[in-house]
Amino acid sequence: MSRKLFMFEKPLGMRDTLPFLYKAKQHVRRTMANEIEQWGYEFIETPTLEYYETVGTASAIDDHQLFKLLDQQGHTLVLRPDMTAPIARLAASKLYESGNPLRLAYHANVFRAQQREGGRPAEFEQIGVECIGDGTIAADAEVISLMIAALKQIGLDRFTVTIGHIGYVHALFLDILGNEERSNTLRRFLYEKNYVGYREHVKSLPLSSIDKQRLLNLLELRGGAESIERALELVDRENGIDTIAELEQLYEHLKLYQVTEHIKFDFNLVSHMSYYTGILFEVYAEKVGFPLGNGGRYDELLEKFERKAPATGFGIRVDRLIEALGEPEESRDIHCIIFSQERLSEAIQLANQRRKNGEKVVMQHISGIENIDACAKQYHHITYLIGQNS
Amino acid sequence: MSRKLFMFEKPLGMRDTLPFLYKAKQHVRRTMANEIEQWGYEFIETPTLEYYETVGTASAIDDHQLFKLLDQQGHTLVLRPDMTAPIARLAASKLYESGNPLRLAYHANVFRAQQREGGRPAEFEQIGVECIGDGTIAADAEVISLMIAALKQIGLDRFTVTIGHIGYVHALFLDILGNEERSNTLRRFLYEKNYVGYREHVKSLPLSSIDKQRLLNLLELRGGAESIERALELVDRENGIDTIAELEQLYEHLKLYQVTEHIKFDFNLVSHMSYYTGILFEVYAEKVGFPLGNGGRYDELLEKFERKAPATGFGIRVDRLIEALGEPEESRDIHCIIFSQERLSEAIQLANQRRKNGEKVVMQHISGIENIDACAKQYHHITYLIGQNS
Repeated sequence: MSRKLFMFEKPLGMRDTLPFLYKAKQHVRRTMANEIEQWGYEFIETPTLEYYETVGTASAIDDHQLFKLLDQQGHTLVLRPDMTAPIARLAASKLYESGNPLRLAYHANVFRAQQREGGRPAEFEQIGVECIGDGTIAADAEVISLMIAALKQIGLDRFTVTIGHIGYVHALFLDILGNEERSNTLRRFLYEKNYVGYREHVKSLPLSSIDKQRLLNLLELRGGAESIERALELVDRENGIDTIAELEQLYEHLKLYQVTEHIKFDFNLVSHMSYYTGILFEVYAEKVGFPLGNGGRYDELLEKFERKAPATGFGIRVDRLIEALGEPEESRDIHCIIFSQERLSEAIQLANQRRKNGEKVVMQHISGIENIDACAKQYHHITYLIGQNS
Repeated sequence: MSRKLFMFEKPLGMRDTLPFLYKAKQHVRRTMANEIEQWGYEFIETPTLEYYETVGTASAIDDHQLFKLLDQQGHTLVLRPDMTAPIARLAASKLYESGNPLRLAYHANVFRAQQREGGRPAEFEQIGVECIGDGTIAADAEVISLMIAALKQIGLDRFTVTIGHIGYVHALFLDILGNEERSNTLRRFLYEKNYVGYREHVKSLPLSSIDKQRLLNLLELRGGAESIERALELVDRENGIDTIAELEQLYEHLKLYQVTEHIKFDFNLVSHMSYYTGILFEVYAEKVGFPLGNGGRYDELLEKFERKAPATGFGIRVDRLIEALGEPEESRDIHCIIFSQERLSEAIQLANQRRKNGEKVVMQHISGIENIDACAKQYHHITYLIGQNS
């Protein structure tokens, strides 16, 4: 039997958002949404619940992180663990008919079951875009530039977009390790950013010392545009070289967008175990230990929903972005009119007038208050309309 | 075994919101939120998942309408079926410390499991307010007037707020039927708006013909302010008379707020089986068969969370409000720049310039398009930047 709950308790990883934090979230949402809309992306919404068998498995979030329930027909439902798979479902079924690029955006909560208290949130808000049906590097560059423009609009100055290419990792691993299974084992270390584990594992492999060194050198392939040159030295295969050409092209685009001050490369970046098929990226800000968001190209996801199409996009976590922006200043911006019954009419008139000027005005009947001093502290200004008007 | 699903399928009652409808929802949300904030209410958020044992039971939505799941500690969780109970939890645990009134607001999705396809949505958005800690009629009048002001701001003209008092129904039933159990049976007919069932049931009761007639007359107690007078004739008990005095006071307040053109009374209104303890109301618009929203006084809910406090509030369903507003006009407001690689730089400059002027601009690489004519149809204007600039 599970223990008795206190009436106040919330489920593991679930959080309330008080007015102070709500305002910060609202500011982030509206500012980012405005920039996203100016780039011609259109917002949509999808349901909180999806079928496990369809969107749940397509989303490829680890199974133990899914919130699951049974519906009355015996199907397993999941609380959506991300927005990319639901949007792929929606685009494939209803929107992507003309064969022409779709630009969609969302802000939505996603869900990841947590194992223990004190850890990460189990429900958090993401804001992002998906550009579906456009396989050009121009689309990758657009998505990255839009993300940077939106973050700058909010007032985030110091942040880095780290760009990699999953095809490069694939090509290098396949060249050295010979098969997918071994590649996947090694790739998981990168996905988990477990570089110690990666080194240990590489050392244990039955490979020539030259090949081991190449795998270890991968970890050093990080930095500015010059790291693209270094990456070229490590791969033989045609595919590996193609991926480098794509990154070079991307960098040329990003120069024209004038966003390269925020760009770094990282050739061992693996943000996801299965979505990404090409260029991928993560965003980091000072003082925040986790990426604020990530994105990349996923050209095989829509195929799962029976309509092949290339796609690219990004998602930003609102909670981490707010952390990166730093503590917002708390401000009391509400005016309170405390009135007695006989002056109700006057109170209504005054409130109407101030609200018309854009002020926030509370009307408070004096009989509804227990302690006037404590009440007054909540507001930036108080007008008393008490007793007969003289 | 359950049947195999199509990849496109969504769970029963779950819906996607396409860009066209999203814009309408966003307009409603922002306009109402703006009015609500001007009245000094502050927005908060609560988690999608709550414990069944606490908020789930306090919410008093019928059990078969709850989406339930088990967490890893063996507790049952529910997808919140309403926002009033979670806000009561939050207010009682964190916010309602000073003993002074709290004014909180929300827009959030709530969940009600559906039994069969083609029916009602299982997830829908509500926007509303809760005024906690103020037991005065002024608070009831404020909440109703705010709701009316917000609906008018959105452009809804023809709507009616039907006001009743759960105390009146209680007093009349208790006076005639003698106990709670019998009262509840009869009350459920009113809650379900099953007036035929109500009449049948009344006729079957072992009562004097005078009492039966009184119960039947209750159904006629609807209309303008004059119905308050008629209601007075039907009750003896002190409580019943108190409730009429409250409604008279409320009406005086609403006159001062100048909203009585939208007000009707309905003495057999029972919007909920357990929350409401006093004045309650529903909003109806022309052409929409269900109430757009409802609200009322619930002075006993916070006690369940161990902090006694009176409270009143309203919640509006965004989907029904949009239905009442009528089909919005679809407008293409996005400008598209179709460019070839050599003119990328020019395309970026033009897009930046237009976006700065507040225009929505898509940049589309020509290689990303399958069919230019079909693509062009999606936008209100196209600029082509193709080939060498002459």
